[in-house]
Amino acid sequence: MSTKVETKVISREDLKKRVGYKAVDDYVHSGMVVGLGTGSTAYYAIERLGQKLREGELHNVVGIPTSTKTELQSKSLNIPLTTLDTHPVVEVAIDGADEVDEKLNLVKGRGGSLLREKLIETEAKKLVIIVDDSKLVQNLGMTGAVPVEVIPFCWKHTMRRLLQLESLAECNVSATIRSEKDSIYVTDNNNYIVDLFVERPIPDISLAGRQISDVVGVVEHGIFLNMADVCLVSGTEGIRVIEKER
Amino acid sequence: MSTKVETKVISREDLKKRVGYKAVDDYVHSGMVVGLGTGSTAYYAIERLGQKLREGELHNVVGIPTSTKTELQSKSLNIPLTTLDTHPVVEVAIDGADEVDEKLNLVKGRGGSLLREKLIETEAKKLVIIVDDSKLVQNLGMTGAVPVEVIPFCWKHTMRRLLQLESLAECNVSATIRSEKDSIYVTDNNNYIVDLFVERPIPDISLAGRQISDVVGVVEHGIFLNMADVCLVSGTEGIRVIEKER
Repeated sequence: MSTKVETKVISREDLKKRVGYKAVDDYVHSGMVVGLGTGSTAYYAIERLGQKLREGELHNVVGIPTSTKTELQSKSLNIPLTTLDTHPVVEVAIDGADEVDEKLNLVKGRGGSLLREKLIETEAKKLVIIVDDSKLVQNLGMTGAVPVEVIPFCWKHTMRRLLQLESLAECNVSATIRSEKDSIYVTDNNNYIVDLFVERPIPDISLAGRQISDVVGVVEHGIFLNMADVCLVSGTEGIRVIEKER
Repeated sequence: MSTKVETKVISREDLKKRVGYKAVDDYVHSGMVVGLGTGSTAYYAIERLGQKLREGELHNVVGIPTSTKTELQSKSLNIPLTTLDTHPVVEVAIDGADEVDEKLNLVKGRGGSLLREKLIETEAKKLVIIVDDSKLVQNLGMTGAVPVEVIPFCWKHTMRRLLQLESLAECNVSATIRSEKDSIYVTDNNNYIVDLFVERPIPDISLAGRQISDVVGVVEHGIFLNMADVCLVSGTEGIRVIEKER
């Protein structure tokens, strides 16, 4: 008689779903204004919120979507929506991230919604980041682009200026304009995205963020420092909760 | 026999014309790439440039317009135009200002073109500011608005955030969204303008500029610090040249 070894295979999609659901279960309560993130993990949090509202487990919750995509998903689930203009106090925001470091600093915006996300999540009393464990990094900016939203006018010039920043001088930085189906990708705010790529770690991420912001023509960037309060990390062993050190 | 006293009345329009013409006469040479400002004083500099090109006194000059308005005027005068994308080195830029203080710091953008102006004039090896003497001030921001270009999305929220800035706390600050014929004014970059008004001097203009920039949703503001190299001031007694202290 042989013992059958159970080989449990959890897909990345499952990891995203679990952590998305858990964020809503643990952090969203009735009566709250909730910032709704954008992307493949936030998708599941919104799905769960819709479910719990429909089933009456939550009531009187309004969402502030961080993109037109999230707005559409939320509307299809009958989640009541509002904006920062009328609801400036956001109790909690839930969103994914492209990268999370050990201090809970983030790179976001590879999906394209960085400006609205930053606008809304800056206002959240609690920002809950939900990721699968592939997003944890030691140095930000090494697994893909650092996205920078720029004004279309003179974008080539703005891109050149970004490549010349002192704070990225040692990183072997390169840049591309984000495109989609052979044309330049346009954000929800009618701007473009310059994707910065570094081959070596950025020595001072805070300085880099400041210098990127200071380039005239830059609207916002995807480096989110000191914003996340808690990060839920989904792995095959379960979900780990990392609280920000105070 | 009586002596006739000559009472010379010089209109404000004349003052603007004189200083606009002088800027081109003194600072634009053949072969240069020239940043072309926007507004009622810059208008005359562009007029003069068109004249001198047409009459062969200047040749091989290309202009970079800071607004669609300036672009139209320049085209009507057959001034060859280019952009920063293809001509990143700007020898000289000539523009008006809404206010100039004794350190040649400026408030600009009451005409609405602050972002393009800042983008192009930041690159100018020499920025020549042309004003009539009504624009000289002791404290910036007291004779009218400090314009702030903002993303349309959640502009009310962004405006509220601007009103809460610590650096403006002692200034009795108020704000309006700029409008035009009963609708919100839209910039060349499809953004809005929040006009900030202070009743008391801004204690630290540099800090204020930084804090305004740091508000998420702000694209650019009209405080131009350490940018002007020389200022030509037109008054009834003639034109005074103020060089920046080094």
